Amino acid sequence: MGSGHLTAAPAAPPGLAPTDILALEGGEVRLLDQRRLPGEVVTARLGAWPEVVDAIRTMLVRGAPAIGVAGAMGVALAAASETGDLTAQRAEVARAAAALREARPTAVNLAWAVDRQASLAAGHAGPPQAVADALADAARRLHADEVRRCELIGAHALRLLSRGASILTHCNAGALATGGYGTALGVVRAAHSADPSVRVVVDETRPLLQGARLTAWELEREGIPFTLIADGMAAAMMAEGRVTHVVVGADRIAANGDVVNKIGTYGLAVLAREHDIPFIVAAPTSTLDLATPSAAEVPIEERAADEVRGVALFGRPAAPAAARVANPAFDRTPARLVAAIVTEQGVHRAPYERSLRRAVEAAEEEAGRTG
Amino acid sequence: MGSGHLTAAPAAPPGLAPTDILALEGGEVRLLDQRRLPGEVVTARLGAWPEVVDAIRTMLVRGAPAIGVAGAMGVALAAASETGDLTAQRAEVARAAAALREARPTAVNLAWAVDRQASLAAGHAGPPQAVADALADAARRLHADEVRRCELIGAHALRLLSRGASILTHCNAGALATGGYGTALGVVRAAHSADPSVRVVVDETRPLLQGARLTAWELEREGIPFTLIADGMAAAMMAEGRVTHVVVGADRIAANGDVVNKIGTYGLAVLAREHDIPFIVAAPTSTLDLATPSAAEVPIEERAADEVRGVALFGRPAAPAAARVANPAFDRTPARLVAAIVTEQGVHRAPYERSLRRAVEAAEEEAGRTG
Repeated sequence: MGSGHLTAAPAAPPGLAPTDILALEGGEVRLLDQRRLPGEVVTARLGAWPEVVDAIRTMLVRGAPAIGVAGAMGVALAAASETGDLTAQRAEVARAAAALREARPTAVNLAWAVDRQASLAAGHAGPPQAVADALADAARRLHADEVRRCELIGAHALRLLSRGASILTHCNAGALATGGYGTALGVVRAAHSADPSVRVVVDETRPLLQGARLTAWELEREGIPFTLIADGMAAAMMAEGRVTHVVVGADRIAANGDVVNKIGTYGLAVLAREHDIPFIVAAPTSTLDLATPSAAEVPIEERAADEVRGVALFGRPAAPAAARVANPAFDRTPARLVAAIVTEQGVHRAPYERSLRRAVEAAEEEAGRTG
Repeated sequence: MGSGHLTAAPAAPPGLAPTDILALEGGEVRLLDQRRLPGEVVTARLGAWPEVVDAIRTMLVRGAPAIGVAGAMGVALAAASETGDLTAQRAEVARAAAALREARPTAVNLAWAVDRQASLAAGHAGPPQAVADALADAARRLHADEVRRCELIGAHALRLLSRGASILTHCNAGALATGGYGTALGVVRAAHSADPSVRVVVDETRPLLQGARLTAWELEREGIPFTLIADGMAAAMMAEGRVTHVVVGADRIAANGDVVNKIGTYGLAVLAREHDIPFIVAAPTSTLDLATPSAAEVPIEERAADEVRGVALFGRPAAPAAARVANPAFDRTPARLVAAIVTEQGVHRAPYERSLRRAVEAAEEEAGRTG
C-alpha cells in the first residue's frame, strides 16, 4: 500500500438507520433523545409542532443538519394539524415556521429548511391534505438528501487523508447530528472503511459532552477505535504527534469561509496551525450561508449557566451555585486557519469566496435537475 | 490613575488561614479535603504516614507546593512514630520518604521537600524525640515559607499587570494548592487588592474541575469577581478581548524555562501567543528543577480513565464505560511561549537558563542566612 491519500472501500457495517434517529411517521415526529444517550436509548414521540420547538431548544435533537430536518418535520406537523381549511392551515404553518426558525439562532440549516417548507406551503394551491402530504414528503426527502450529502462528503474527503491517519474530532458531527452517517464523523467512517488502521481522538466537548456521550457511542457501535480526551488535552496530543488531521463539522459557514461551530473549535484550529496539522471542515452546502459575509455577523447563542456549573448534566453542581458563567455555544474560526472545506460537491480551498459560491451554484443546479 | 503597572495596596480581607488548609498538630496531619469542596468543607485527620501517601495519591491534597508541605509533614509523622530507638526511627523515616516521594511523580516540590526531611533526619544525632521535633518544626517552617514566598510572588508580579486587567487562570494555583495565598491566585489576590477593577476568567479544568470547584470557591470567599468557563471557551474569550493576561502556576520548571503544569496549560500558552497576550508563570523557587534540562525529561503522570469518563467525579458515567481514554495529568509548555516566570526572588525573563539559575542561587543564599 502506498502512502498517498485514501481510496474508497465497501461501506462499513451499518450503524444507526437514519429513521432510528429522525422520522415523520404516523402523524408524529420521532426523535432519538440525544440528551439521554449513551445511558438510555429512548425515542421521543412528538405529536404537535410546539413540542418540536422544545426538542430543538433543549437539544433533545441537535446538530445543524439534524435540526434542519427536525424543523422541516415540525412544519409538516403544523400543516397536518389543519387539513380542514387552506387559510387556517397557511396561518398555522406560518406560526410554526416562525417559532421553529427561532428555536436556535446559530445554525443556518434550521432557518433554511423551515423557510423552504414555508415557501412550499405558501405556493401550494391545495387542497389542505395535499399541502400536508407535500410538506411531509419534502421533510423526508430533505432527510434522505442530508444523509446522501454526508456520504458524498465522506467520499470526497478521502483524498485529504493519509494511511494510518489519527483524526481528532470535536463535538458530535456524526449520524446523530445529521440524521445519518455524519459530516466530520462521516469522513471518519469513510476513512476507516478505506483503511482500518485509521484512529480517532474524541474531544469530550464540554459543557454538554457531545463527544464523550454521542461520538464515543457512535464509534463504539461501529467498532472504530478511538481515544477519548478532555478538551484541554488536545494540544498535548498534537505536540506528541498523536493527531494527523483535525476534522470538524460546522453550524454555519460564511461567504468568506469563516466557520461557526461548537465552542472549542476555534482553539483547535489555532493549535492545528501551530502543529502543522490540516484543519478540515466537513459540511453540506445547506450549511453555507453566502448571504453572511463573515462569521462576525453570525449570532452566537449563549446558553444556561448551569450547563457549565454542572447542574444540568449531572444533577449536582461542581461549581459554587452563584458562580458567574460564560456559556457561548459556538465560536468563530477565521477562514485563514481552514485548510479545506468539504461539501457534497467536493473539496473547496481558499479563496473561499469563489470556491464556496461555485459549490452552492452546483448544488442549486443539481436541485433544479432533480427537483 | 495612570495606565502603568499596578502597585501594592493593603492586603485583601483574609481568606482561609494556612492552618485551615494544612497542619501538623496533636500528632496528626490535618488536611482540608479538596476532593469534597465546594460542597463540603471537611478536614481529614491522618495519624500515620501511609495515610498521607494515600491523601497525595488520591488528590485529597493537591497542588505542587501543598503536596511538598504534606510530604514533609508525612515524614515528620514517621519520625514521631518511632521515638524509642534511633536506628528504627531512621529506617521508618527512610521507608516513609521513599513512599511519599513516589506518591505523585510530576511535581518536583514533593521530592524536594521529602528529601530535605530525610537528610535532616539522617544527619541528626538524636535522641529520637529531638529528631521528631526537628522534623515537625521543619515541616511547619516549610509551610510558613511557602506562604511567604507566595506573598512575595504576588507583590513582584504587579509590575507585569495593568489596570483593569482580566486575568485568565487554569486549574487551582491558589491557597489550597500552596497551603496559603497561592501562586497564580496569589498574583490575582495582589492585583485585586491593588486595583478592585481586576477581573478573573477561571478555566473549569477538566477532568477534575479544580478551577470550577476550588478556584471559584476561593475567589467567591474573597469577593473577587470571576467568570467561570469550560476549557474550550478560552480561545473565544481571548479573540473577543476578554483576557489581558494568562497567569498559571507550575508543577515543575526545567532549567531551560520549560514549564510542566496541569493538562491544558500548553494549549493556553499557544492561544495566548496567537492573541498577543502575555503568558506568565508564578511559582516559588522550590518548583525550579535545575537538574532537569528541559520538560522532555519530566515524567507525566497518567491518571485513571474514569476521571475522564466522568465516573469518579459525578458518580455516573458520561461516556461509554469501555471507552478508551487518555488522561495525562500535566503537559509541557516550551519556554519560548513564556513571557515571564515570577518567583519569590523576582520576575525572570528569557534566557531562562541564566535567570532561573540566579533565582535559585539567591534563594539558597537567603536560606543560608536565615537557616
